[in-house]
Amino acid sequence: MPTTTLRGVGASPGIAIGHLHHYAEATLNVAHSTSTDPAREKARLEEALAQARQEIQALATQARHNVGAGEAAIFEAHEMFLDDPELLDRVDSMLQQQQVSAAYAWQESTQQAVAELRAIDDEYLAARATDLQDVAQRVLRIIQGVEEQKLALSEPAIIVAQDLTPSQTIQFENEKIRAFCIAEGGPTSHVAILAKALGIPAITGLGKAIESLHDGQRAIVNGASGEIILDPDKATLATYQQEIQALTQAHQEAFQDAHQPATTRDGHTIEVVANIGTPEQVAEALHQGADGVGLLRTEFLFMEREAAPDENEQYAIYRSILQAMDQRPVVVRTFDIGGDKPASYLHMSNEMNPFLGIRGARLALEHNDLLQAQLSALLRAGEGHNLKIMFPMVSSLEEVEALRVQVQQTQATLSAQNTRYAQQVEIGIMVEVPAAAVMADVIAPHVDFFSIGTNDLTQYVMAADRTNSAVAHLADALHPAVLRFIRMVIDAAHTHGKWVGLCGELAGNPLAAVVLLGLGLDEFSMTASFVPLVKQRLRQLGTEQARAIALHALSLPNAQAVHAYLESLT
Amino acid sequence: MPTTTLRGVGASPGIAIGHLHHYAEATLNVAHSTSTDPAREKARLEEALAQARQEIQALATQARHNVGAGEAAIFEAHEMFLDDPELLDRVDSMLQQQQVSAAYAWQESTQQAVAELRAIDDEYLAARATDLQDVAQRVLRIIQGVEEQKLALSEPAIIVAQDLTPSQTIQFENEKIRAFCIAEGGPTSHVAILAKALGIPAITGLGKAIESLHDGQRAIVNGASGEIILDPDKATLATYQQEIQALTQAHQEAFQDAHQPATTRDGHTIEVVANIGTPEQVAEALHQGADGVGLLRTEFLFMEREAAPDENEQYAIYRSILQAMDQRPVVVRTFDIGGDKPASYLHMSNEMNPFLGIRGARLALEHNDLLQAQLSALLRAGEGHNLKIMFPMVSSLEEVEALRVQVQQTQATLSAQNTRYAQQVEIGIMVEVPAAAVMADVIAPHVDFFSIGTNDLTQYVMAADRTNSAVAHLADALHPAVLRFIRMVIDAAHTHGKWVGLCGELAGNPLAAVVLLGLGLDEFSMTASFVPLVKQRLRQLGTEQARAIALHALSLPNAQAVHAYLESLT
Repeated sequence: MPTTTLRGVGASPGIAIGHLHHYAEATLNVAHSTSTDPAREKARLEEALAQARQEIQALATQARHNVGAGEAAIFEAHEMFLDDPELLDRVDSMLQQQQVSAAYAWQESTQQAVAELRAIDDEYLAARATDLQDVAQRVLRIIQGVEEQKLALSEPAIIVAQDLTPSQTIQFENEKIRAFCIAEGGPTSHVAILAKALGIPAITGLGKAIESLHDGQRAIVNGASGEIILDPDKATLATYQQEIQALTQAHQEAFQDAHQPATTRDGHTIEVVANIGTPEQVAEALHQGADGVGLLRTEFLFMEREAAPDENEQYAIYRSILQAMDQRPVVVRTFDIGGDKPASYLHMSNEMNPFLGIRGARLALEHNDLLQAQLSALLRAGEGHNLKIMFPMVSSLEEVEALRVQVQQTQATLSAQNTRYAQQVEIGIMVEVPAAAVMADVIAPHVDFFSIGTNDLTQYVMAADRTNSAVAHLADALHPAVLRFIRMVIDAAHTHGKWVGLCGELAGNPLAAVVLLGLGLDEFSMTASFVPLVKQRLRQLGTEQARAIALHALSLPNAQAVHAYLESLT
Repeated sequence: MPTTTLRGVGASPGIAIGHLHHYAEATLNVAHSTSTDPAREKARLEEALAQARQEIQALATQARHNVGAGEAAIFEAHEMFLDDPELLDRVDSMLQQQQVSAAYAWQESTQQAVAELRAIDDEYLAARATDLQDVAQRVLRIIQGVEEQKLALSEPAIIVAQDLTPSQTIQFENEKIRAFCIAEGGPTSHVAILAKALGIPAITGLGKAIESLHDGQRAIVNGASGEIILDPDKATLATYQQEIQALTQAHQEAFQDAHQPATTRDGHTIEVVANIGTPEQVAEALHQGADGVGLLRTEFLFMEREAAPDENEQYAIYRSILQAMDQRPVVVRTFDIGGDKPASYLHMSNEMNPFLGIRGARLALEHNDLLQAQLSALLRAGEGHNLKIMFPMVSSLEEVEALRVQVQQTQATLSAQNTRYAQQVEIGIMVEVPAAAVMADVIAPHVDFFSIGTNDLTQYVMAADRTNSAVAHLADALHPAVLRFIRMVIDAAHTHGKWVGLCGELAGNPLAAVVLLGLGLDEFSMTASFVPLVKQRLRQLGTEQARAIALHALSLPNAQAVHAYLESLT
């Protein structure tokens, strides 16, 4: 049988070999049915809504336990649909005016709301529509007394589906799922987020191609490249099996030394730290041997809720994280809202290009009250610990100066209140905007450190939205253009005696470690699971040799040439 | 009386002094009225639509004559509403099913369509809603036999309005309008586009502030800064009157030598050329003394129409422009569609960040047929003239190589057909993407020239959408970050013996001329009316002195410091 290769969007990295299994949950559909007792129908609906709330809360707990608080928030958002006044009004008026059954009124009202969300061609609203459909089906199933379908796989399989709702994704038994191959969605869809958090390879955006796949067909899924190799021949299969085995073994070997520092052959110790997005990920970071936290994203405190968190709520969480990390460095990024991360209570206007709009520090400087509450919570929580504060999306020296004023005002308020707080906190900025990179020599004297955010930096340098699959191929952080910006930042910082970290996905790529070491990077910050491998890779390297390799990479014409060159070295 | 200053968004530059005059056209509103003869109502509507079409075509002609083809396209888009099948079906079914009058059915159907467009918070659709309302009122007025209102100003005034439709803007007698002050809209609204083309200062986005303005109040409008000074005192008035006078005099003086080359004090001749967007602007470019065309935008051929133009239509227009410019250089940019410039027939998907999506060369490489038709038309038209071809939005060497293949294939086809075409055409790229700037040394050997597009380059370097008023203040092309990118590009090009132009708004800013000359820029391309002043400024400068000034500007910390420094020199 000939081998065929399909291509989608790599949504969660990893290689899997297995048999395909189509998954399609039957959609409930109730016929038009009348009722002369609107009050009874209303009561029936309310009962179903209450049970749905319990089920969703259980899923949220499961997600929090298995995945993390950020992912649990997906289900908290689901819960909000159960209270949506506009939706409930619509159902009510159907019950009153058309005297239909609760099931029919609920079905029609939610379908209409889903259609309205889908009518607008917007990726975020499309995801909300999928969420609402998920909730709508759950309530309908409860009203109708239909049992929840569970996927019963006799053996592990690669799941093929048109789309998966968050409920479906989270309910699979992880050990039975080799990979996900999804027709819809992009690299930022819920299924992509959950798959990444679960460590399961996933490909999205396969479109109609999934119709050509059949149950039981053998396939190799490469969740990084987005490739599916169908009916692989023996040689291909053997190659990938070896690769999986080698990866597993490499992981195990690397893990043995993960708690040792990453010291290069010539004796330079490099800080290898973790990116974390929820308090639950602290334990995993320590388990994987992270030397600290290079990026604590604080959005989990600010997103998917009705109002901003108050200072004490924040304090308690920051304090618990800092205590868990003891004396290890913890770099906390102030709230990075805007772009693809909205917050309803900030009443942000709809922008034509949100990635080029009010986000990060720009938003924080418009909401001094929120920023000072966060800074106050952080400064208090940092006492006795190794806290560093970092501002996202800074584009100019003026912003650095304005942000430092905010820190000083917060300190002055705390002093006036005789509140104890950390006196020696390093203040740094993320370098994501090309202007900040090219002006790093001017900005360096005004900060304690830089942390390069290669995900956003790459999308601005290449003018390619990393969440847009049509141009995502341009947004490669190993493009020599991006590497040249990284060099600019590190050289400028070192001239002024400041250190530089990097907290984009590039830091967790073992292939890139030699270039980043060669450019002089002081701190590598990444998803915790990559820490052992990157530490291991750094220990194999010498600084001088790495410098020569980095310089050669900078002279190459394109990203492909850099990849090929680095692969030739390993 | 105390002086008050209001602030909006500078939408069309220039200073005006005058008295305010509120303008508000009464909106027609017909009551619910029935008719038992749907066929007669239908006929009545069709008659009105036909007359509306004539009026709109007359406006388009007026716009083409007074302003340009790009602006006339606004009215061509209006005409399309008269044929909109969805809208007409909606009216029809109201006539049939509800037996209402033509006027009422038209009013209700268009109001519903306007409401649907407005429901989506999108700047482009909001502008379409204003367009539809404009057309809807015109048709309603015709059905009802109401005379068109004309603004009768006894003396020149500053027009204050909630919003102005394109029809309203174009119908004012230009010589009676000192400036526009508009509550709604942004810098990209139709009124802004038309005001700029008419050379009338305009401020938009004033919001509720316009309610505090009263008829006859004296004001100074600064269309560049977006400021309105109300009830200016004598001293302020005198200052601005002198400024207007000085500007007028400087323009007149500069114009006297506009047809002489711009030769610096030390004998370097700099090419000062025009940006043009329609064939009608060629005459103005020659009149203002442009040494050629540094940027011919070809979007006017591709936008606001149902299908792409064919090769012969393009050939005729390019040929007439090249003939008019005789042996002067003409740099033609291939179609730069995408971003904020959609084209319906290309079926582009709705992107979350269109400025970081498929646009310019990225789109052209997806539509080789369109690109080769344009290249073929250009190569044929260029025979015997000084044609240069330039590709927009290039981010990498791979794209340059792929674009050159397109040129070669087009040449091969023309040769195979024994068609005569220009053999020696320079091929260049626009440098707008930071990656192209930082990789200019790698790209330079593969092109004949670079043209720096500072408008887009600035928005990527600063990560600030230049059409978003909330961040537009960050997108200042005189920011030292942007100037550093310009230096990178010029240095890399000169090392490889290639020339560099600049066709963003920065080129037409006399204040910036010294810096750009100092950085080594070879060609300045700008709106034709700025040519005389920039030529005059360049003649006052010496290259060595300019170089020292440029180096100092690069070392400054922010845009404000650069502005202050350059102003201190004049």
